[in-house]
Amino acid sequence: MANGQRHPRQATEPSAFGISLSKGNGRPLFMQLHEQIVDRISAGELTAGARLPPVRRLAEQLGINHMTVAKAYKDLAKAGFVEGRAGGGTHVRAPYGTKRARGAEPAVAGPLLSERLYELAHAPGVIAFTTNHPEPDSECTKEFETCLQSVIADGLSPYFINDSSNGRVSFRREIVEYLAQQGLVTTPEHVIVTSGAQQAIELVIRLLVPHGSPVIVERPTYYGVVNALRSAGARILEVPLESDGMDIDMLEALLSRHRPRLIYTNPTFQNPTGVTTSIEKRRSILALARKHGVSILEDDQNPELRFAGAPISSICALSEPDDDVFYVRGFGKVFLPGTRLGCVVTPARARRSLLGLKAQSDLHTNGIMQEAMARFLARKNYPKILERMKRVYATKQRKLIATLSAGMPPGTLIGQPEGGLNLWLTLPEGAEVSELYYRAVRRGVAFVAGEGFYASHTNPRTLRVSFGLLRDDALEEGVTRLCSVAQDLMPPRSASSPIFT
Amino acid sequence: MANGQRHPRQATEPSAFGISLSKGNGRPLFMQLHEQIVDRISAGELTAGARLPPVRRLAEQLGINHMTVAKAYKDLAKAGFVEGRAGGGTHVRAPYGTKRARGAEPAVAGPLLSERLYELAHAPGVIAFTTNHPEPDSECTKEFETCLQSVIADGLSPYFINDSSNGRVSFRREIVEYLAQQGLVTTPEHVIVTSGAQQAIELVIRLLVPHGSPVIVERPTYYGVVNALRSAGARILEVPLESDGMDIDMLEALLSRHRPRLIYTNPTFQNPTGVTTSIEKRRSILALARKHGVSILEDDQNPELRFAGAPISSICALSEPDDDVFYVRGFGKVFLPGTRLGCVVTPARARRSLLGLKAQSDLHTNGIMQEAMARFLARKNYPKILERMKRVYATKQRKLIATLSAGMPPGTLIGQPEGGLNLWLTLPEGAEVSELYYRAVRRGVAFVAGEGFYASHTNPRTLRVSFGLLRDDALEEGVTRLCSVAQDLMPPRSASSPIFT
Repeated sequence: MANGQRHPRQATEPSAFGISLSKGNGRPLFMQLHEQIVDRISAGELTAGARLPPVRRLAEQLGINHMTVAKAYKDLAKAGFVEGRAGGGTHVRAPYGTKRARGAEPAVAGPLLSERLYELAHAPGVIAFTTNHPEPDSECTKEFETCLQSVIADGLSPYFINDSSNGRVSFRREIVEYLAQQGLVTTPEHVIVTSGAQQAIELVIRLLVPHGSPVIVERPTYYGVVNALRSAGARILEVPLESDGMDIDMLEALLSRHRPRLIYTNPTFQNPTGVTTSIEKRRSILALARKHGVSILEDDQNPELRFAGAPISSICALSEPDDDVFYVRGFGKVFLPGTRLGCVVTPARARRSLLGLKAQSDLHTNGIMQEAMARFLARKNYPKILERMKRVYATKQRKLIATLSAGMPPGTLIGQPEGGLNLWLTLPEGAEVSELYYRAVRRGVAFVAGEGFYASHTNPRTLRVSFGLLRDDALEEGVTRLCSVAQDLMPPRSASSPIFT
Repeated sequence: MANGQRHPRQATEPSAFGISLSKGNGRPLFMQLHEQIVDRISAGELTAGARLPPVRRLAEQLGINHMTVAKAYKDLAKAGFVEGRAGGGTHVRAPYGTKRARGAEPAVAGPLLSERLYELAHAPGVIAFTTNHPEPDSECTKEFETCLQSVIADGLSPYFINDSSNGRVSFRREIVEYLAQQGLVTTPEHVIVTSGAQQAIELVIRLLVPHGSPVIVERPTYYGVVNALRSAGARILEVPLESDGMDIDMLEALLSRHRPRLIYTNPTFQNPTGVTTSIEKRRSILALARKHGVSILEDDQNPELRFAGAPISSICALSEPDDDVFYVRGFGKVFLPGTRLGCVVTPARARRSLLGLKAQSDLHTNGIMQEAMARFLARKNYPKILERMKRVYATKQRKLIATLSAGMPPGTLIGQPEGGLNLWLTLPEGAEVSELYYRAVRRGVAFVAGEGFYASHTNPRTLRVSFGLLRDDALEEGVTRLCSVAQDLMPPRSASSPIFT
């Protein structure tokens, strides 16, 4: 541990279970209790499996109401630090990011990162730099409400039937038109509507990746894909991401050596790094995939949210009909998070098999939502909405980068993406994100530790700072807290000169 | 083939490609063309892979507009008889129900039965006994519209965020209350909201069934489960279904011999047979599962739609906390098809793993729909709706059974379920459902051939006749057509005495 100091505690009352609460310091007791237990877990004093004292006993020892202890335990459980066990008692959970043993048990994706992110984003008082989807502004919300109203007004009867697995044709037509504006020409027959991009990604992986088969991903890459690949039993091959996309020599070497079935890429404002793959590298990836007969899963999260530079063609738009490119989009990453509407543009020869998997997974995606989204797109008010969003988030990004550059410890590397809602930070040598993470949560600020984005050999100094959902005042306060925690974490560096990035 | 006769054709014009059309007989030309090609596929004259003549050439030969041929080909493709190929040309597809070769290719569920059913149910002029979900009546639709309106009126902003994977607590609370009325006591923490019952079933299978592991199902069973199990690489063990549920001796023998991980059962108005498992057999299944340490996946489709007899406790309601019963419900099978809302009540120790899979599959189910359904349940108007539905469908069932009993060939066995929207028929010895199927579609009536419901050794004389969605006049006309086709199919039986069921 770079930092030898461990959470000095000013005890103002006799302690029980190493806990001492201070009444009248303005912090509610349950919150103090919560924090001190997180501290002890973070410091390794309470390890996975350790049992917390029974609620009533601890309450008695601390001289507080048992409901206060119960609330603290409940919040700790909600935040994933502890869990109730069938045999009784509250126990410390395996720490965040711990890989589960893989063996006879059914393959289940690693830690429930999506749940953690959700919980953090909702925890009281925590400013969470964890959300990389935007908050729809009032006009966007209103626009969607209008569309949903009009669907209802036309009568819901047509939707109360098991619908076609590939999605409503009205929606697929609008998707085609929407994609055409981004230079991707396709037809409604090649579009399969999914319940968000996540489902599209998982279906393609399940279709293409037999158990034990190698798959290429960028390093680092989206944790949802790492989980889906692990669950499919894939052998994950990581190609380092450079500032303009994958290391192409490495990609070629891995293609020749391992003969994988699939390349997964997130070429624009990559999650988590924000890196955009250059047009040259997109062409190279496509050419290599063609040469080696391997499919490409192109996860294009939010190319619309570009703050600088010129748009770049998707790999799918560059491809020929014979190429095996699966192009995935989710509308939640741009306009309307939570609606769970996405799609995959599929090569003709994979369509039926993919549809079979979609039908088997959930028959079809909710038709009312599809129709409302179709009308949202058809009304063509989104360019205006997009322009406004881009202005808003470009400003947020600029501010965030400036504050982080000024406030993070010298030597911190901060990526400068041309768009998207993520920043990727690398702490200086000697720092550990896991340590920063626990201290930050205690100080009411959260981010995403980088480790979830690696399939192997995590870089323990990386973190993702996402600025979706955050209002300006929260953003400022949050980044101040984060910088201050990070500065505290660093060993004294009197001799070293600051490194600006 | 039991029936030696093969579609006599009265050619009134010179034929091309074996087709001869008759202008002025009242049937549109494209329809005649469609039917004759279906005939030839059905008769085995056109086998899988055979190429149909190019549109313009055939149009020329027949002396008709090429748009007419194009329309017929398009309809044939839509109905799944033919397909366009990447290399060009229209080719006959492998027949309905053909098992695909299983090998190096990724495991994809068998034929796209759900797509077929959807297409049949929508094909013009076809009366489709293929839908086993009800049509919501106008009051039910209105009720849901009111709820959805109220969700919009309260503002949609809370839903434009990535939501919790286990589902909205408001909805889970209502589900708990709804299930309590059916004698199943649980808590919102044990409920995971899914995108319909199908997703719940697939998630449980993916969680519990490692590749190659044996799983017990009823014989016959729901095709969606057969597909999901095949896709998971499960070894499917079938236990014959008797009139009161699984053959318990056989179940016990298979449990001892194969040590499976999972028993899948659909105990009430089973799909496809309509069989209801008795309370005694439910207890036996539970006891055996406990004894052998095997999980139960209880798919309780629509126990509400009971027309006769007293309700029977679900296996989950009979279980103890230590039992591993996963209880699956989908609201589309009762109230509101197409909304893709379902849930699984999960044993505490499986909850986190199952949630992980849900998150990985599609993050979460659409929140707006969840909230609307929560309000639908909370308003408590559904008992009235249910009572009316039960009256309507009980009458339909009675009529259908009476007409089929009178009109189907002697020796046809017709099940008499106590509820649900399926009837299960077994044709007399010598008849083949595949033959009946093609002839029926040609005469504008469709059903579901039984073969999809078997994991092995299909019984080629079984079929499912479902009466969801059908209005009374269509039902009457459809059953008349079906009986007439079936009678035509049977070999002359002058010597045999009719068998009544």
